[in-house]
Amino acid sequence: MDYQRIIDGIAREVQPLFVRGRVADYIPALASVPRDKFGMAVLTVDGELYATGDAGEAFSIQSISQVFTLTLALGYVGEKLWRRVGKEPSGSAFNSLVQLEYEKGIPRNPFINAGAHVVTDALMAARPYAKETLLKFVRELSGNPDIAYDEEVARSEAASGFRNRALANFLKAESNLHGDVDTVLDLYFHQCALAMSCIDLARAIAFLARGGRGGDGARVVSAPQAKRINALMQTSGTYDAAGDMAFRIGIPAKSGVGGGIVGIIPGRLALAAWSPALDKTGNSLAGVRALELFTTRTGFSVF
Amino acid sequence: MDYQRIIDGIAREVQPLFVRGRVADYIPALASVPRDKFGMAVLTVDGELYATGDAGEAFSIQSISQVFTLTLALGYVGEKLWRRVGKEPSGSAFNSLVQLEYEKGIPRNPFINAGAHVVTDALMAARPYAKETLLKFVRELSGNPDIAYDEEVARSEAASGFRNRALANFLKAESNLHGDVDTVLDLYFHQCALAMSCIDLARAIAFLARGGRGGDGARVVSAPQAKRINALMQTSGTYDAAGDMAFRIGIPAKSGVGGGIVGIIPGRLALAAWSPALDKTGNSLAGVRALELFTTRTGFSVF
Amino acid sequence: MDYQRIIDGIAREVQPLFVRGRVADYIPALASVPRDKFGMAVLTVDGELYATGDAGEAFSIQSISQVFTLTLALGYVGEKLWRRVGKEPSGSAFNSLVQLEYEKGIPRNPFINAGAHVVTDALMAARPYAKETLLKFVRELSGNPDIAYDEEVARSEAASGFRNRALANFLKAESNLHGDVDTVLDLYFHQCALAMSCIDLARAIAFLARGGRGGDGARVVSAPQAKRINALMQTSGTYDAAGDMAFRIGIPAKSGVGGGIVGIIPGRLALAAWSPALDKTGNSLAGVRALELFTTRTGFSVF
Amino acid sequence: MDYQRIIDGIAREVQPLFVRGRVADYIPALASVPRDKFGMAVLTVDGELYATGDAGEAFSIQSISQVFTLTLALGYVGEKLWRRVGKEPSGSAFNSLVQLEYEKGIPRNPFINAGAHVVTDALMAARPYAKETLLKFVRELSGNPDIAYDEEVARSEAASGFRNRALANFLKAESNLHGDVDTVLDLYFHQCALAMSCIDLARAIAFLARGGRGGDGARVVSAPQAKRINALMQTSGTYDAAGDMAFRIGIPAKSGVGGGIVGIIPGRLALAAWSPALDKTGNSLAGVRALELFTTRTGFSVF
Repeated sequence: MDYQRIIDGIAREVQPLFVRGRVADYIPALASVPRDKFGMAVLTVDGELYATGDAGEAFSIQSISQVFTLTLALGYVGEKLWRRVGKEPSGSAFNSLVQLEYEKGIPRNPFINAGAHVVTDALMAARPYAKETLLKFVRELSGNPDIAYDEEVARSEAASGFRNRALANFLKAESNLHGDVDTVLDLYFHQCALAMSCIDLARAIAFLARGGRGGDGARVVSAPQAKRINALMQTSGTYDAAGDMAFRIGIPAKSGVGGGIVGIIPGRLALAAWSPALDKTGNSLAGVRALELFTTRTGFSVF
Repeated sequence: MDYQRIIDGIAREVQPLFVRGRVADYIPALASVPRDKFGMAVLTVDGELYATGDAGEAFSIQSISQVFTLTLALGYVGEKLWRRVGKEPSGSAFNSLVQLEYEKGIPRNPFINAGAHVVTDALMAARPYAKETLLKFVRELSGNPDIAYDEEVARSEAASGFRNRALANFLKAESNLHGDVDTVLDLYFHQCALAMSCIDLARAIAFLARGGRGGDGARVVSAPQAKRINALMQTSGTYDAAGDMAFRIGIPAKSGVGGGIVGIIPGRLALAAWSPALDKTGNSLAGVRALELFTTRTGFSVF
Repeated sequence: MDYQRIIDGIAREVQPLFVRGRVADYIPALASVPRDKFGMAVLTVDGELYATGDAGEAFSIQSISQVFTLTLALGYVGEKLWRRVGKEPSGSAFNSLVQLEYEKGIPRNPFINAGAHVVTDALMAARPYAKETLLKFVRELSGNPDIAYDEEVARSEAASGFRNRALANFLKAESNLHGDVDTVLDLYFHQCALAMSCIDLARAIAFLARGGRGGDGARVVSAPQAKRINALMQTSGTYDAAGDMAFRIGIPAKSGVGGGIVGIIPGRLALAAWSPALDKTGNSLAGVRALELFTTRTGFSVF
Repeated sequence: MDYQRIIDGIAREVQPLFVRGRVADYIPALASVPRDKFGMAVLTVDGELYATGDAGEAFSIQSISQVFTLTLALGYVGEKLWRRVGKEPSGSAFNSLVQLEYEKGIPRNPFINAGAHVVTDALMAARPYAKETLLKFVRELSGNPDIAYDEEVARSEAASGFRNRALANFLKAESNLHGDVDTVLDLYFHQCALAMSCIDLARAIAFLARGGRGGDGARVVSAPQAKRINALMQTSGTYDAAGDMAFRIGIPAKSGVGGGIVGIIPGRLALAAWSPALDKTGNSLAGVRALELFTTRTGFSVF
């Protein structure tokens, strides 16, 4: 299939969406990203790479980082991680305190903010230098040693992160955060501030299309674990729009408020798209549309 | 692959689960079903049928019927059905009034009770003889003209269905139920009371494995609609355990409190299992385990 | 104190409020009441009666009737009634299903709809002819043998009462409604449809100002019970505005969506006001203002 | 009336309650208070003081302090304080995040934790040296210059106050906390750590029985404001048991988890009781019982 022609066509087709929606503006570093940026990258399981537009430009990956911390934490902590965080879709806004209180401090899944805090806390307990461990991990997965935390973004997130601080303190009150709240949040804000390009992301996420193996054939996670992370992305990877995304895109995907979104077609390829303007559910308007067009054009779907 | 050997093995292996869990006991007709019943049927897209145990014995399919009413309603009403019911996982118990009130009478998806009421109401508005239409539809899909409503079950459901009556009246108060409440509930209780066997179900559901086509090649729904129904089953088909099911089974599935569960491996096969004892989320203990073992043994997964 | 002059002055002063707010319009019989109706009546514990405006005209007392059913039910059932209904303010809209589900079918207090259903159910279990018993009771309390149920209002309430039907069925599902749902609702809709005037209401409610004794000195309830009913009216008598009412009026009060409101100044007097237009909390705009002016002018307050 | 004999009798009568319930144990300084402590003090509006038991021993007044900060804040900020905090009973646990999120960051009333944070924030904005201002205020009201913050308690509250930190950060995220979160919490934890005796409290709170005037006849708040604070105590002063307290005690009251409780009989007297063991709603078991017995024996009730 001529992936290059397909994604080039998509890049043209999604342009009208750039002027719609809203760029995340809760911190200056995100608000200043031009809304006409668009990139898309595809990496097949055979290692062929296709890219278009701004696919090489780094952006703030935000919640997409939750896939990497979850993968790492599962490696260190194993299945008992699921005692502290659920696997069910959240059924409400991604930063809701209501559900957390109702469920006594056990977040519904690792892809809502509170769940990500617990995963981060678990990773920190297992790895003293978690911040360095995470950076090393994404650099290796993507083969790009220049990937870094955007310290300005991390600082801004910390300065405005009152709701995350509320969630983390609530988890602490419910005894589901073991480390120091500020230290956990510091790592959380840093992982959100990872700056990566579509190409970086497609490479980094591709182990989920390869049954858990990295580009060099080495195992990142077991095959069942890879399937399970894909399943989680399918049911919970796009905030409160996971059902609609499964409906429209039909593949496991994970998005971030920086406008990035990654998707997996198991056994075939990984893909990543980026466009800063968001719909009201916090997902990239053009990014989601790009994945939808890609699955429609290629006929790929898990269903 | 030797499906017969696989399902025979599974039938032996799940036996220890029969004594665990709890048979639905809110109506006598369900409570009296022996807990050592177990059946399983597989139908490939090529039309090969494999069955084991009590796969030919009819049982109360309960919520599995929601797949058939949704399919019919989509055919008659089309995409505008989604203005009245969402596509998102519910994130709470399957009969919750809380979420319904919070969301002003728009049920989260067609596979929670309130959502099923809305679908039933929409079907009734489109088809005056909806009860007959539905029966004809499942008879044709399964090729079994003897499928019938179990009137005793329907009567018992009606007699004890106070929570469903609460939900339907609430929908009416919120103007999202257009027909007469009692008439809508009568059809709802009847569809829950459809008596079908695993073999019936595997045949009836197989159009979702065949990209929307029936056993005779005729189109039941369009290919995109088939994918979307599969996506909905994946994210919302097993009550509040959809995330865990995606995690464990890895394929779209729909369960009922009668102990039945159906699953789809797109492009390959449909399967159905039945065992009356339920786990605390309302899913069949041995039925779920049977699907899990089947996907593990065959290596089939959508992820 | 010159009560007549005070209430005549109030009647003039509240007139600008008649054009504001909204007359209850969910049933035709309420919607057709002219919004410039206003009545007020004061009955002292010594039996002096003062009245102004339309104080002699009967209107639909709606939720004010809950005081009478509660008083009767307490008489027949006693303190064990509180096992089935709480005494706490509800903290949310008066017909909320959310709190009811959260609290497993025990309504917060007798003055929200669900609580009134439970009280009605308890009364019916104790008195086979509850509808007649209630009518006889309010006739005796007010000394007016012509008080009657407005059957047109009762019929309309029943025809549009989907939310009440939802609540009652939910209570039934939670085993906190023992009688037949439709029969309980029939009595509920009838008690709401009691037609009484301000003068009737001031007389009927005055036992709560007299420490539990009727106008003839006979005991209606014990002195502690009278205090407790007053306390309940104070904390929960005006829907979700009880705090604001305590703040503004400073005396126990109970309102209805027909525009009526009654108030008690223990040891001194009972008063009733009526004006059909409601504020957004469902309380009579001019009625509440009339009570506020009365307590300000007289200096009476329980605080 | 022989108040001394009444309270001496009460002191004997409540002793069996000392061994029941549970002393607050979330910080060591509270957990170590002997559970057989009991004090009670009555101050009439004429200035007569009656005391029994440990009425002269200082304890941690905790949430009772909210009456003093509210009084001060109303003095400085005036009625516009009510734009930021409601006057309605909360209808759920006193530290609930659920209601706060549902109501978009406007706490239901000043006597739940979140409401107290907002009041504290408003006071700080009005008075740069709020901590000193508050201390001076309670010293003057009680006529005891030795009243002080218990720094050990304040430190312990801060160290374990994750839920309060969650609430305050949530308020900040919803723009209803203007000051620095940690500074606001520091004052909040200090006010909870005020150490006062029953005698101190009865004197300090007595302005609410005197229509807003202090012991020297000087105005603390206006008469309407005093009534309103009493009304708030009545509807919301004892956590989620305000309805039950109104029912049992029948007078405005405010409690704290240190085991203290104060009550007002408007126009007559103020009273305070202390016993460390709490019921499950967080109110002092023997303290509440003492007030109940006092109102029963004296026949005083606002209803």
